[in-house]
Amino acid sequence: MHKFIFIFLLGLCFSWQAYAQKIQSPEINGKKVTFRIQAPLANQILVKGSWQATDDKGTTLIKNTDGLWSATADIADADLHTYQFIVDGVPALDPNNLFLIEDRQVYYSAFILEGENTKNFQGAQKRGNLEQVWYDSPTIGSERRLNVYTPYGYENSTERYPVLYLLHPGGRDEESWGISGRLAQILDNLIEKGLAKPMIVVMPNINPEQKASPKLFLPANNVDTKSPEYGNLFPKSVVADIIPFVEKRYRVIAEPTSRAIAGPSRGGRYTMMVTNEHPELFQYIGVFSMGLRDDDLKNAEQNFAKIKTSPLKLYWIGCGTEDHLFESVNELDKALTRFGIKHTYAVTSGAHTWSVWRDYINTFLPLLFK
Amino acid sequence: MHKFIFIFLLGLCFSWQAYAQKIQSPEINGKKVTFRIQAPLANQILVKGSWQATDDKGTTLIKNTDGLWSATADIADADLHTYQFIVDGVPALDPNNLFLIEDRQVYYSAFILEGENTKNFQGAQKRGNLEQVWYDSPTIGSERRLNVYTPYGYENSTERYPVLYLLHPGGRDEESWGISGRLAQILDNLIEKGLAKPMIVVMPNINPEQKASPKLFLPANNVDTKSPEYGNLFPKSVVADIIPFVEKRYRVIAEPTSRAIAGPSRGGRYTMMVTNEHPELFQYIGVFSMGLRDDDLKNAEQNFAKIKTSPLKLYWIGCGTEDHLFESVNELDKALTRFGIKHTYAVTSGAHTWSVWRDYINTFLPLLFK
Repeated sequence: MHKFIFIFLLGLCFSWQAYAQKIQSPEINGKKVTFRIQAPLANQILVKGSWQATDDKGTTLIKNTDGLWSATADIADADLHTYQFIVDGVPALDPNNLFLIEDRQVYYSAFILEGENTKNFQGAQKRGNLEQVWYDSPTIGSERRLNVYTPYGYENSTERYPVLYLLHPGGRDEESWGISGRLAQILDNLIEKGLAKPMIVVMPNINPEQKASPKLFLPANNVDTKSPEYGNLFPKSVVADIIPFVEKRYRVIAEPTSRAIAGPSRGGRYTMMVTNEHPELFQYIGVFSMGLRDDDLKNAEQNFAKIKTSPLKLYWIGCGTEDHLFESVNELDKALTRFGIKHTYAVTSGAHTWSVWRDYINTFLPLLFK
Repeated sequence: MHKFIFIFLLGLCFSWQAYAQKIQSPEINGKKVTFRIQAPLANQILVKGSWQATDDKGTTLIKNTDGLWSATADIADADLHTYQFIVDGVPALDPNNLFLIEDRQVYYSAFILEGENTKNFQGAQKRGNLEQVWYDSPTIGSERRLNVYTPYGYENSTERYPVLYLLHPGGRDEESWGISGRLAQILDNLIEKGLAKPMIVVMPNINPEQKASPKLFLPANNVDTKSPEYGNLFPKSVVADIIPFVEKRYRVIAEPTSRAIAGPSRGGRYTMMVTNEHPELFQYIGVFSMGLRDDDLKNAEQNFAKIKTSPLKLYWIGCGTEDHLFESVNELDKALTRFGIKHTYAVTSGAHTWSVWRDYINTFLPLLFK
């Protein structure tokens, strides 16, 4: 009987899953990160990660005699990094790493390589809450979901709070700022360190055809994504549906000096559309990695007509020099200057990535509601 | 230049990721489910799923000349099913399936095979909100996280609601009822169909050493998991910390006729501990897949002394005949009868699994607060 149990336990130890659990991967030593995976039957394993160039095929792992594959990468940049193993051509999560990131509907394993730019990515002692909230959007014609961050202490206070409406980039959803953007952790840290004011952050889904993240598998809304009106639907719904909902549902300061709106990429485009149309609502504006392209420039004079005479506390724009939209952001900068709109333009390193947008939110949040 | 772009786009199409996106997997036709994965370089691919016996090595996929592997499984039971591909020995998610389930800190691809028992797993039009909320637990000595479901309409009403405290089984966390248990979808459906009363559901983390799900990577609490007092910490904190927090924070009916507590496995054990000690607090009790073992039986008379004279609206216990704890639940049934505690005992098919617990919650929720 005892012998039977022993053999049974031994069997468990050598099944792939139980065995895999004992392997340390990734192992981080300074800038060196070692990836390991047990795979005696595989012929080729690569690790493809966010620290590599897009067209890089990945780093080849080497198999030892026990069937344990490993590779060590020298990673220059501190960041929240994502990766996949490519096992004989098939993408696989690291079975020994619980840290998972979903972006553009693909799952990646992840780790934080610590550095100056990641110091607000973890470690706060006082944490805000995150809520997945349904609201009615008559403009789009359905109930839709947004994520809301409320700061530590919100529940036990009677205070009213300022609100940032934070839009996601194209191809993402209402969960993305919480997952890839690390919004909650960054803001928890900034508030705890006294660098940002406690605020509510509302993260809607900017895709009108969706009720919520595709991960919820809900039927699509009856919205024609090819219609010329498609691009106006979400910006309209911010003013008509989302702000009224939020200001009824949460203890907010419902004044332009306590309302901010920001977003990268398509979220930046929608930020401009909302604030150009309703500059009276927001005195803090952030446009990340999005500018004015040829078509936009033709109508810029008209589009920015209202906002150029509106009182603003902050118009912050930023772009990485490796971003394919960098030239368009230079054009936005020039246009804002031409229109006499006082603004801050942060030219940074980096491309059109969450790495840049995490940096921007870390810079932008402390500037709000001061 | 045009030729260069064409070749570049062609390259993108045939890179593993872009190509993989076009494949339909899983494809469900009645009880037949086809799994597919593009993997020209792999030698062996299996699919291992929740419909197979635990010791089943999985179903072998067959490769066609294009490197597309596939297998069709005949799956008897309608359910929320989970699976992984095993690619040359390595577990991999299905890259064409966005539906992901985390259980016991392992990620699986998932699908719903529709049937009578899954009719509340999706499709509700009116959806409750889900919140990740931090509360202070002086009993355990840290801030800790719980998930809260508030029913559709909660925000726009001034009504007070009854509360179910729903505990997770061992090895899981505060997110598990939302992920594996499909609590929100099941309750949305039951409420929409008029089968369950609108209620708040509070899902705490029952592991005192954790502040929150391990997926948040927070430092462990200073709790000795080997201490004889360890097992009492969470049940104590329910009464001392969680109920007071919830009754302050939410619009609840703070009366025993509007308080329920339930859970499977270790969550069922803790349910018994809390209600035996404080039967005055709860009139609805659910113990799923957990009973009385030899040691428990010795002290049962004493442990159940208070509750046997307490007014109860519902004491619901359930167990699957294939559950390794089935005998212990038979003992609980006999003990409750011996003590004169009116109860319902549901003997069902199934083992110690989420499949059974989803069924139980679907049965149990309509019995509450009537």
